[in-house]
Amino acid sequence: MKILNNPSSEIWKKSLERPVQKAKKINKVIKPIFKSVKKKGDQALIQFAEEFDGVKLTEILVTEEEIKAAKNQVSTELQEAIEVAYTNISKFHTAQKQDELVEEVMPGVICRRKSVPIQKVGLYIPGGTAPLFSTVLMLAVPAVIAGCSEIILCSPPDKEGNIHPAILYTASLVGLRKIAKVGGAQAIAAMTFGTESISAVDKIFGPGNQYVTAGKQRATNYGVAIDMPAGPSEVLVYADDSANPAFVAADLLSQAEHGIDSQVVLVTNSEDFAKKSLKEVDKQLKDLPRKDIAKKALKNSTAVVVKSRETTLDIINNYAPEHLIISVEDEEEVVDGIVNAGSVFIGKYTPESAGDYASGTNHTLPTYGYAKNYSGVSLDSFVKKITYQKITEKGLKLLGPTVEVMAENELLMAHKNAVSIRLNYLKNQK
Amino acid sequence: MKILNNPSSEIWKKSLERPVQKAKKINKVIKPIFKSVKKKGDQALIQFAEEFDGVKLTEILVTEEEIKAAKNQVSTELQEAIEVAYTNISKFHTAQKQDELVEEVMPGVICRRKSVPIQKVGLYIPGGTAPLFSTVLMLAVPAVIAGCSEIILCSPPDKEGNIHPAILYTASLVGLRKIAKVGGAQAIAAMTFGTESISAVDKIFGPGNQYVTAGKQRATNYGVAIDMPAGPSEVLVYADDSANPAFVAADLLSQAEHGIDSQVVLVTNSEDFAKKSLKEVDKQLKDLPRKDIAKKALKNSTAVVVKSRETTLDIINNYAPEHLIISVEDEEEVVDGIVNAGSVFIGKYTPESAGDYASGTNHTLPTYGYAKNYSGVSLDSFVKKITYQKITEKGLKLLGPTVEVMAENELLMAHKNAVSIRLNYLKNQK
Repeated sequence: MKILNNPSSEIWKKSLERPVQKAKKINKVIKPIFKSVKKKGDQALIQFAEEFDGVKLTEILVTEEEIKAAKNQVSTELQEAIEVAYTNISKFHTAQKQDELVEEVMPGVICRRKSVPIQKVGLYIPGGTAPLFSTVLMLAVPAVIAGCSEIILCSPPDKEGNIHPAILYTASLVGLRKIAKVGGAQAIAAMTFGTESISAVDKIFGPGNQYVTAGKQRATNYGVAIDMPAGPSEVLVYADDSANPAFVAADLLSQAEHGIDSQVVLVTNSEDFAKKSLKEVDKQLKDLPRKDIAKKALKNSTAVVVKSRETTLDIINNYAPEHLIISVEDEEEVVDGIVNAGSVFIGKYTPESAGDYASGTNHTLPTYGYAKNYSGVSLDSFVKKITYQKITEKGLKLLGPTVEVMAENELLMAHKNAVSIRLNYLKNQK
Repeated sequence: MKILNNPSSEIWKKSLERPVQKAKKINKVIKPIFKSVKKKGDQALIQFAEEFDGVKLTEILVTEEEIKAAKNQVSTELQEAIEVAYTNISKFHTAQKQDELVEEVMPGVICRRKSVPIQKVGLYIPGGTAPLFSTVLMLAVPAVIAGCSEIILCSPPDKEGNIHPAILYTASLVGLRKIAKVGGAQAIAAMTFGTESISAVDKIFGPGNQYVTAGKQRATNYGVAIDMPAGPSEVLVYADDSANPAFVAADLLSQAEHGIDSQVVLVTNSEDFAKKSLKEVDKQLKDLPRKDIAKKALKNSTAVVVKSRETTLDIINNYAPEHLIISVEDEEEVVDGIVNAGSVFIGKYTPESAGDYASGTNHTLPTYGYAKNYSGVSLDSFVKKITYQKITEKGLKLLGPTVEVMAENELLMAHKNAVSIRLNYLKNQK
């Protein structure tokens, strides 16, 4: 991890640039997968499971028995932890519910706006060695609270044809019933086109490898929405001398262990603090099981020492970090200056991992600079807001002439006529 | 306009399918435009203005003088109409503001969520014969209410190098100051990459021809967000015998005059009503200046006669119309059954054109079936919601063990360690 001491804006901008993402090659791989799933449905999914997951599936959907059995395979300790997280995430996402808005903008002109659940949603949970049951909570909890009428979860099976029990347990706890043993781009294709076992959905959520994320991008060509564009995970820690270098190091490492492409940035007003933190990073790194990954991620990472608060905010808002940890004395003042970030962790006892798992906020966040123009997943992600208007006779008499003049000036006479014909009718009635 | 009497679901699904959109050819045209604007900035914009708009520009940005002069060219009648619309749209969009959400999910674990304006937004307003000043209101009003720090409006100049005075007047009324004489894909490229006169923006809004919409799609490859995917405009009218066939015909025509690819659908429980309405369509069509366009649009349009309420709701929700007019006796019952629509117009005195211009709702709406998974433009479109968490010592003691267990089970030991190191520190302090 290199230290930039009081760099010019050209230097820090260059140093904090994200790596370019290349998708062409991957698109070549997933195109025939999409084609095959569209044409052959479940049969294609079974073929791909054999090819990619090394398992001959007889059933694509997880059975009630499998779900029941999963519970016994999850330790009580983990069950209890998941339940605490579930409660917190439910509370914070339930609090995001919005009442219907009703506004009479003029006498007799009533506008409304209501959140209506997206009907069919698909949640993708990656497989691999680590079971990402936390992501099940982050996606399924708001989907259930929003009231989506159909929720399907796809996750790749292991070589025995099973989905990890912690994933099944969590899905079942939240109330999901439709869980499919399908991974990779074929899962995304299945949720895009529908198969015998899997419904076509309106929106697809969830993280995944490059095939999954390219698959999600491809799904958008078929009218499916996705949660947000993908990119490697990242954290920016802003700390001053009031922070604890060991805590800061632990936070940097918890991001670095995600993957070799993880982005880790430290911004501080003190060179001494930067040095202490990096020393702590080296010390803590040694004991980590995923130290090889973390080491590679740290190689591309930067510590920036900068005195001016204005420049600091410039750096943070320009970088627009997915995760922003603020561990400085005047933390709330800094919070007020943040305009671009996914989720913000305030104070020295708020590690990113708290939000990754259990504080209640969502961990599906915009990365790769998308925090400038996208929000993280929330209850909003599972609804659309429909507007309504109801105009009374009185209201139309009041508003109609305005519409007539505007329509006429936009040369849309049929638009004008839709008002005039009603106003004439009302006049003739009298 | 053909009538389908009590069709099977295969028949109505087939008949209501949207036309396929083809983008490949257009992408070939806009690719070099993007390249040129990226490389040559303003110089490219001036070249393209000469090539596509037939005008030699000396200045790209509209001057204060031009804005002042515009006011005198807009009739008092139109100024007053625009002001009424402005007031209604402002009221309804201001009512969409959300307070910061603060939720203490556990003692010492405080989660927050706040709307923060997207900093830089670009609004595109098409040129052509009709000045779409109404779209200026629909995009600029929420941008200003949201508090976006930089708002740029692009619109193509006419052959004299001017933007229509009604557009300038409206933009100025709302408070915009940066207006550029740039149209087409080059405007989108300019807002994507930035030029000497035009800032690169975070999100681009607005309608346009196929070059503009393909340009917006291309902009998303460079990290820019867009309001929503594009498609031809459409209306579905659901009416029973309580409705007025002349009103219904006027509404169908006001959609049909938009363009030859406009989609117009009538759903009714009465064949007699369908016939009366279509007769009225023929009658009113004759007097319309844009009758040739409307005629072509109506050729591909369908009236569906269906008795069952359940099937009716099925048809509407499957089609997911951009505009839905409900003119039936039990209107609110129908409204409750609608899960997919952009904006809903309730009752016989609520023509679509009221919402197009002045009722207060936004007219930038999801079309082409995207009402299933996208909302129309609203205040939300100009903000992102950032989450925050602050955990106290007490909070971390309470929540920390949960995070440790979950992280360990996801095999992310550095995530666990970020909590453990803090809990150990707190323990040792005692």
